[in-house]
Amino acid sequence: MKNTFGNALTITLFGESHGDAVGCVIDGIAPGLPVDDEEIKKILSRRRPTGKTDTARSEKDEYKILSGVFNSHTTGTPICIVIPNEDTKSHDYERGPARPSHADLTAFIKYHGFEDHRGGGHFSGRVTAALCAASGIIMPALRNGGINIGSHIEKCCGIEDPGFSKDPVKTIELLKTKSFPTISDEAGEKMIKAIEDAKNEQDSVGGIIETCITGLPAGLGEPWFDSFEGILSHIVFSLGGVKGIEFGKGFEAAGMKGSEFNDPFVINDGKIKTTTNNNGGINGGITNGMDVLFRVAVKPTPSISKEQDTVNFLTNEAEKLVIKGRHDPAIVRRICPVIDAVTALAVADLLTVRFGTDALLEGSRLWNTD
Amino acid sequence: MKNTFGNALTITLFGESHGDAVGCVIDGIAPGLPVDDEEIKKILSRRRPTGKTDTARSEKDEYKILSGVFNSHTTGTPICIVIPNEDTKSHDYERGPARPSHADLTAFIKYHGFEDHRGGGHFSGRVTAALCAASGIIMPALRNGGINIGSHIEKCCGIEDPGFSKDPVKTIELLKTKSFPTISDEAGEKMIKAIEDAKNEQDSVGGIIETCITGLPAGLGEPWFDSFEGILSHIVFSLGGVKGIEFGKGFEAAGMKGSEFNDPFVINDGKIKTTTNNNGGINGGITNGMDVLFRVAVKPTPSISKEQDTVNFLTNEAEKLVIKGRHDPAIVRRICPVIDAVTALAVADLLTVRFGTDALLEGSRLWNTD
Amino acid sequence: MKNTFGNALTITLFGESHGDAVGCVIDGIAPGLPVDDEEIKKILSRRRPTGKTDTARSEKDEYKILSGVFNSHTTGTPICIVIPNEDTKSHDYERGPARPSHADLTAFIKYHGFEDHRGGGHFSGRVTAALCAASGIIMPALRNGGINIGSHIEKCCGIEDPGFSKDPVKTIELLKTKSFPTISDEAGEKMIKAIEDAKNEQDSVGGIIETCITGLPAGLGEPWFDSFEGILSHIVFSLGGVKGIEFGKGFEAAGMKGSEFNDPFVINDGKIKTTTNNNGGINGGITNGMDVLFRVAVKPTPSISKEQDTVNFLTNEAEKLVIKGRHDPAIVRRICPVIDAVTALAVADLLTVRFGTDALLEGSRLWNTD
Amino acid sequence: MKNTFGNALTITLFGESHGDAVGCVIDGIAPGLPVDDEEIKKILSRRRPTGKTDTARSEKDEYKILSGVFNSHTTGTPICIVIPNEDTKSHDYERGPARPSHADLTAFIKYHGFEDHRGGGHFSGRVTAALCAASGIIMPALRNGGINIGSHIEKCCGIEDPGFSKDPVKTIELLKTKSFPTISDEAGEKMIKAIEDAKNEQDSVGGIIETCITGLPAGLGEPWFDSFEGILSHIVFSLGGVKGIEFGKGFEAAGMKGSEFNDPFVINDGKIKTTTNNNGGINGGITNGMDVLFRVAVKPTPSISKEQDTVNFLTNEAEKLVIKGRHDPAIVRRICPVIDAVTALAVADLLTVRFGTDALLEGSRLWNTD
Repeated sequence: MKNTFGNALTITLFGESHGDAVGCVIDGIAPGLPVDDEEIKKILSRRRPTGKTDTARSEKDEYKILSGVFNSHTTGTPICIVIPNEDTKSHDYERGPARPSHADLTAFIKYHGFEDHRGGGHFSGRVTAALCAASGIIMPALRNGGINIGSHIEKCCGIEDPGFSKDPVKTIELLKTKSFPTISDEAGEKMIKAIEDAKNEQDSVGGIIETCITGLPAGLGEPWFDSFEGILSHIVFSLGGVKGIEFGKGFEAAGMKGSEFNDPFVINDGKIKTTTNNNGGINGGITNGMDVLFRVAVKPTPSISKEQDTVNFLTNEAEKLVIKGRHDPAIVRRICPVIDAVTALAVADLLTVRFGTDALLEGSRLWNTD
Repeated sequence: MKNTFGNALTITLFGESHGDAVGCVIDGIAPGLPVDDEEIKKILSRRRPTGKTDTARSEKDEYKILSGVFNSHTTGTPICIVIPNEDTKSHDYERGPARPSHADLTAFIKYHGFEDHRGGGHFSGRVTAALCAASGIIMPALRNGGINIGSHIEKCCGIEDPGFSKDPVKTIELLKTKSFPTISDEAGEKMIKAIEDAKNEQDSVGGIIETCITGLPAGLGEPWFDSFEGILSHIVFSLGGVKGIEFGKGFEAAGMKGSEFNDPFVINDGKIKTTTNNNGGINGGITNGMDVLFRVAVKPTPSISKEQDTVNFLTNEAEKLVIKGRHDPAIVRRICPVIDAVTALAVADLLTVRFGTDALLEGSRLWNTD
Repeated sequence: MKNTFGNALTITLFGESHGDAVGCVIDGIAPGLPVDDEEIKKILSRRRPTGKTDTARSEKDEYKILSGVFNSHTTGTPICIVIPNEDTKSHDYERGPARPSHADLTAFIKYHGFEDHRGGGHFSGRVTAALCAASGIIMPALRNGGINIGSHIEKCCGIEDPGFSKDPVKTIELLKTKSFPTISDEAGEKMIKAIEDAKNEQDSVGGIIETCITGLPAGLGEPWFDSFEGILSHIVFSLGGVKGIEFGKGFEAAGMKGSEFNDPFVINDGKIKTTTNNNGGINGGITNGMDVLFRVAVKPTPSISKEQDTVNFLTNEAEKLVIKGRHDPAIVRRICPVIDAVTALAVADLLTVRFGTDALLEGSRLWNTD
Repeated sequence: MKNTFGNALTITLFGESHGDAVGCVIDGIAPGLPVDDEEIKKILSRRRPTGKTDTARSEKDEYKILSGVFNSHTTGTPICIVIPNEDTKSHDYERGPARPSHADLTAFIKYHGFEDHRGGGHFSGRVTAALCAASGIIMPALRNGGINIGSHIEKCCGIEDPGFSKDPVKTIELLKTKSFPTISDEAGEKMIKAIEDAKNEQDSVGGIIETCITGLPAGLGEPWFDSFEGILSHIVFSLGGVKGIEFGKGFEAAGMKGSEFNDPFVINDGKIKTTTNNNGGINGGITNGMDVLFRVAVKPTPSISKEQDTVNFLTNEAEKLVIKGRHDPAIVRRICPVIDAVTALAVADLLTVRFGTDALLEGSRLWNTD
């Protein structure tokens, strides 16, 4: 349903880049979850532009929770979070020339010219601040239930970061402390340098993000339309710039033989596990208890300072375009907490569908059979 | 919602591999659409096993439309299509050993052992016959509205098929006449040979499917959760065996510069077009009027005749497993009409959301501004 | 969503009066529920026309469960139930003259003349057989969880039946054994006589149905849109002929003072109860643990043999209409199991939302705090 | 979905009586609708407490639109409206004693004690201010499309107001100018007097509201679950205090003969009309082009100053309760604009389902066949 996601625990997004605010409403959340300002701030700060790889726009992200939280706990009724916009410079945004790879033209067609075009309006990545804030409430509840979610930049400008370690929870914790989320600091430094180079060439770059979910109970997801992959890909493709997603071996699997790809089952500490995880923790659309692993392809940021050919949709004439305003030469750093956030929202919804409205309150007591 | 997909035009799936029937209910469809048995049969025959690359299970696919069609036209009320199962050999299917990469174990956990395990039960690819039958009603309506959808096997066993031609509608028509859907017959023959080789080695293979949608009006999809990519990926991941999806340049985009990737706008015959189509026809989650192009990664078929290590979940003991029964060494051929089908369903839903319940009846009159 | 009802446990209806079949798909149901043919047959027989107060159409109601049931238990995957139509006499149904109070004209407008008009098509009460069959699976699961649902004809032709006794479970059991569901046999006989009189006058009558739900856990329903009353009224108004619904004192409450109407709380056997039940078991949209009581107004059956003034919508000319065909002089008898059925479906959905997908399997273990 | 209503045009509610704010998000609304502050203020002022029949709480209702409106028109993206709470006196609200007919106890059970109990929290009628504000955007668009919605107090304290006149649009306009919405001023004055008397007796009263919708196109609503009555009753029962709803003759119909009740069709000015409107403008769940008429039963306001028996749910002990704080002796006046508002939301949703996302922008051009 347009700007609402989820079946049992839903999130509804609103806001524009240069309007009064962005925000969201979370509904169907369990009562009694602690709401900790520090958690929310920490996540927002991971998304906030900083340093040389991001836009110069400065956002304070001073969110306000208008409802659904009382005595620092969720009440179980809808939570509205509002993040006011402050550092907006609308005069930078001219209308008419369709910025290539942006939604200017499609928004103009869809909304008949009534769209708020300033800074991308409702299409702006600014709206993802609301997703991050929401995850600041959800994520600790998942963690208390033994579920951890983390992402790193697996590839950018040809530089590769190694995959999650044998102890992914530790890696996830480590990643959340880093200003540039790579597992290898050396890889991270090289990426930063390469992004700066692109910026100096008035250009932009993309990258690949790898995400890991640990501690998920087996049995989440449905055989057909609401497969775990279907639900997760649905919300991940909400994010501007995402052009692909793969689970487990993903596209590589297409070139493997069944005998190579199939994950053999074994008994391990009395539990059924697989020796490999080529399926990324999902069989038949349903979690099997192994870590869920997926990778997301992020295209290069559309806004570049280089001159581009385009058409002005107000005059229907060709134009040369030089994009001014502030923009990110790469969003790979800032998209990591956002992918974590939407993953957390999807997982929280699936848990609530499966275990009912108190799922996040009761946590692993409901799904842990140890 | 579990086994229902769509916001305005919905499809609900049911059925098990070795139960009485598989089928679906289509709701929210426009009244007055011609229902042509030949169309439905043709699509079902493209999905039906045949020749050396598929299972030996013989399915007549004699579907029956129980409701919603009167005088060979849709009535506008729900259409129930039932496809009885006939050639079922349940004794081939033993219970207990979790077939690797299959849903045996996850189904056992999720349904507490009450699942119909015979032949994969509700998880069986057999259920996709219902999706194909449904598309036999939807697809002609889309075509009348100027929208064509087609898929080919882009890669299998290392063999590549060339991409869609400059005249994709013609290529799509051609593909629908082929028993093995590659654009190049030579590539197709090589793939068939390689699949047969894998089968002889008691193994299986996967592949990559490329799909093209032509003639879509600009303006379909939403800025955030119901992005065109989000909706489409959601339904495509319903299909067992799909492990990845990418739009336009997809994962390749992650390695490109913005100046390379961005699709410049030009005026062409008085219309705004892009000179390249790296975004795959979608900007900001919304169709831009160019062809939509996406690629799907299909893992190797899980069922192989080679011996595999596994665990019997009834005894919790390790076992050696040799899968008997009939199975496909590759599903790349048979999945093409299924991907076409789910794409058609998603597109029909988006058109109905955008243009109302008569969208498919009125067709391009509603969206064509020529 | 049109023909689908429910958030977590959904039912999708299909079928036409004189098509091949009517039926439904139940999705989201817990696995492991026993499916007992006798239960389903018993409910269908309560809805089946019989005797002098009903249509002469004879329906065998030989339903078939196509999916979702294995070894006489629900599997947890979608259940498709099909009830073939047999005794159809389509030649009785002429097209054109809009039968007053029927959907002929509104269907003609909505579906542009493509509707299956025979015997009311998809609008026919025949479709409710599918609702009853579905409830034959749900109702025993509710009963096992301590929840009982029953309805009686509270008023018909000016004759009143007394309300539910102090032991409503017993009254509910009794009602299910009766061929004409009144609590007082004497009232029932008078009603039957009055209905026969109306029939002899080529006329029809309506009535008021009262329904009781016992054993509901407190806490079902939501503060705003998904209030218990909102959910239940939504599904009850699905039924053709229903023109009103009221909970507890309902319309009578509008004339009461707060001091008369408010239900005082008391401690009773260590539990919080109310001394009166003017709110019908619901406070703020949420069940409070008392019996839920509601009343439904059923209009007189539209089909009467008397001559009526109408318009032929094919010619746009006034006409005199004498309805032939078989029809019920009153549906008050037959609607009771249907109201029970939709109530059971709504309650099962609310329990599944609240307690998760295994709610009906686990039953009162989840909600009983005794 | 809990606090979200609608299929194509949705509204999501949030907020608590004594929290920071109440508000809503409207999604799926057509772009290009004029947003007029005066319209919104006018509706809010009709709901605002004033005079002797209402609470003494003074609310400024200074709403703020945070998103989705640009250059005084809807953009087509989500509109978030926030109405800050100002005159809150939380110390008046003690916790523990369950106020009879209130949601204190059910909220306590449902939310395990984490609910914001102050002033009824999320259950408070205060939240309806957000519904009214939303309708301030929707209502003018409907009116431009020829659709008018209005309500009057048909009965209160035994005093009856006459029904809608032959020119209901004029009556509706008149009602919107009145501080106490009765058609007859004399009836209104008597009602006010009776409400004051009840207040002086430390008591409260209820009443019956009658609502009329004119100008609806025929063909809205669905045969089964999404019948017009089903949709409308669902949203009307959201409102605290509503205990019954009836369409057309409603409960009176239950006592009529078919020959009395059926609305004969006639040709009138070349159009098909009915001579009576006992069905309230709906046949088979679908609008027939006549005015839609329905009546809502409102129970007496639960809060009374008289001493009441209750139980303290924190101690599980019986208590005598005297409710302090400010409350309405009757909500019949203030609920009228709220019923108008939810009716407008339901109608706007049904139009958007039927005619697509631009329905409200295009208005009667889409549905007027004159």
